[in-house]
Amino acid sequence: VKIPGPYLLFVGDEASSAHAKTARGLAHWRPELCVAQCRVDGRGADLGLRDLSPRAAAAEGARTMVIGVANVGGFIPDAWTDSIVGALEAGLDVASGLHTRLTELAAVRDAATRTGRNLHDVRHPRQSFPPGTGEPRPGLRLLTVGTDCSVGKMYTALAIERAMKNRGMKAEFRATGQTGILIAGEGVSVDAVVSDFVSGAAEWLSPANDDDHWDLVEGQGSLFHPAYAGVTLGLVHGSQPDALVVCHQAKRRHIQGFPRFPTPSIRECMERHVEAARLTNPEVVCVGVSIDTSSMEEDAATEFLDELEDMLDVPCVDPLKTGVQAIVDRLEDL
Amino acid sequence: VKIPGPYLLFVGDEASSAHAKTARGLAHWRPELCVAQCRVDGRGADLGLRDLSPRAAAAEGARTMVIGVANVGGFIPDAWTDSIVGALEAGLDVASGLHTRLTELAAVRDAATRTGRNLHDVRHPRQSFPPGTGEPRPGLRLLTVGTDCSVGKMYTALAIERAMKNRGMKAEFRATGQTGILIAGEGVSVDAVVSDFVSGAAEWLSPANDDDHWDLVEGQGSLFHPAYAGVTLGLVHGSQPDALVVCHQAKRRHIQGFPRFPTPSIRECMERHVEAARLTNPEVVCVGVSIDTSSMEEDAATEFLDELEDMLDVPCVDPLKTGVQAIVDRLEDL
Repeated sequence: VKIPGPYLLFVGDEASSAHAKTARGLAHWRPELCVAQCRVDGRGADLGLRDLSPRAAAAEGARTMVIGVANVGGFIPDAWTDSIVGALEAGLDVASGLHTRLTELAAVRDAATRTGRNLHDVRHPRQSFPPGTGEPRPGLRLLTVGTDCSVGKMYTALAIERAMKNRGMKAEFRATGQTGILIAGEGVSVDAVVSDFVSGAAEWLSPANDDDHWDLVEGQGSLFHPAYAGVTLGLVHGSQPDALVVCHQAKRRHIQGFPRFPTPSIRECMERHVEAARLTNPEVVCVGVSIDTSSMEEDAATEFLDELEDMLDVPCVDPLKTGVQAIVDRLEDL
Repeated sequence: VKIPGPYLLFVGDEASSAHAKTARGLAHWRPELCVAQCRVDGRGADLGLRDLSPRAAAAEGARTMVIGVANVGGFIPDAWTDSIVGALEAGLDVASGLHTRLTELAAVRDAATRTGRNLHDVRHPRQSFPPGTGEPRPGLRLLTVGTDCSVGKMYTALAIERAMKNRGMKAEFRATGQTGILIAGEGVSVDAVVSDFVSGAAEWLSPANDDDHWDLVEGQGSLFHPAYAGVTLGLVHGSQPDALVVCHQAKRRHIQGFPRFPTPSIRECMERHVEAARLTNPEVVCVGVSIDTSSMEEDAATEFLDELEDMLDVPCVDPLKTGVQAIVDRLEDL
């Protein structure tokens, strides 16, 4: 189900910009889709957009209010209910990537029925999927993988999509997480799929296409993550990538939230993901490394990327600082 | 939720003994739990047990009728409904490992409500699980892994449990699939768990225990399976095995149902599963290989196991022919 745009971005009363990750992602990657922001009582992170009420946003063409903020636990606080009901009454759909479903809240569910508007709980797949087949299909696929969660896999896939489109290449971002789905307007939250069907869901998400068409599949987790590696492996096998990009955050020493688990070296991460991907696509190659160097000084970051590139013999970029053109060059050569 | 025994084994009208796998597994591994068999119209595979009606079985102490047969698709044919309702009316619970839930059938659901009996849909976990933690816990764990599905992982784990108990060792089979759950009376069907929580479910299933207590965890799938490897990896990481046993069916040339995917060599299978398991238990070792040699002549099978043992330097057994004592010897040495 496509989520109808354009969007009104709801940031609630959450002042921390870190928690407004989804809203910031949308404002950055789909500015043309973002009509305005909506805050509760004037609090909430400022995204640099106009503040509009649901009714005013609807009058300017907004069709969906997106819950763009997450708190720890992923629930929907009572303080937001009035705003959500107000959005439905203003004629907007409401979309959320939170763990709590909008449909679990009686007041919200009733308002949606009364107004005939749709609720989009993007974290929870509505359809079921068959098991993976492992059968090859036409078209080209790139998957971003990484040393951990939250190391830039979504950002890198979107940056590559944009660079390819700017060159006139056929490219499509394929979302596998909540923020990605809201940015793309569609996709599958693979970590919420029953484990037997993860590779089947990944096949469904990146179907047969033109021989020169690239799917840029958003990766999830890491084969080195003690909780989520199984999700990663199903996604690797089902998306059958022709190309991998390894993502990493400089200076991250251990898996986020798991201090006993050191992050693997980039080389080890690359080798293990390529080894796994060969099962369903023996021709897979690593075409680049994407590092978030925001924790480093400018000079140190440049030096780090240069050394890494010498060592690994693939383009090593920071998508924010150097862009991803070097990786797209490599893809054009494939 | 424990499934109350003893059981009446329902084999329906399915003459093929291959499809009565669950009933045969129960009759073989838990004969003391199996009061009788129940067939529809005198058809259905013969397990060598007495034929009793639900009412007669209840009078002899049976507490649950187990659907012991599966058809292709895993649904419940209309022809079985009367028998299932009859069992509930006779005072029995009903347990099923099929894909279709008993609770989806209106007549069955109504009869359960009316009689106050319980329906056990063991393929569908009732509880939710947290994500895995990767934290070590006391107690010892063995996980059976394999080159493919249906290569003896459940059988091998049960055979090792029995051999260990016969030696007076502390050992407990931990079921991860439908048949295993019905044999053990409890467990988690990990392939039906949401992918984010598979390793957490495996941790829950094999909790902290005495330092000399072994959990024998039933493996699922294979890291070389194009559809189900993600399930396998989550189970490997969550069960944190100290010991692995690699299972294989002699002469199987490709993954069952996936002719494009050759079965890996036993050595490659061993190495890849040990490599994966090291993430959450760096001390893991492979303690044996378990081969189903039923497709080979007796002499050829013996020779094959001997050669394999020379090559791999771990005990190589066929649990049906040689038993698993050599593997248990190795466990006692650990």
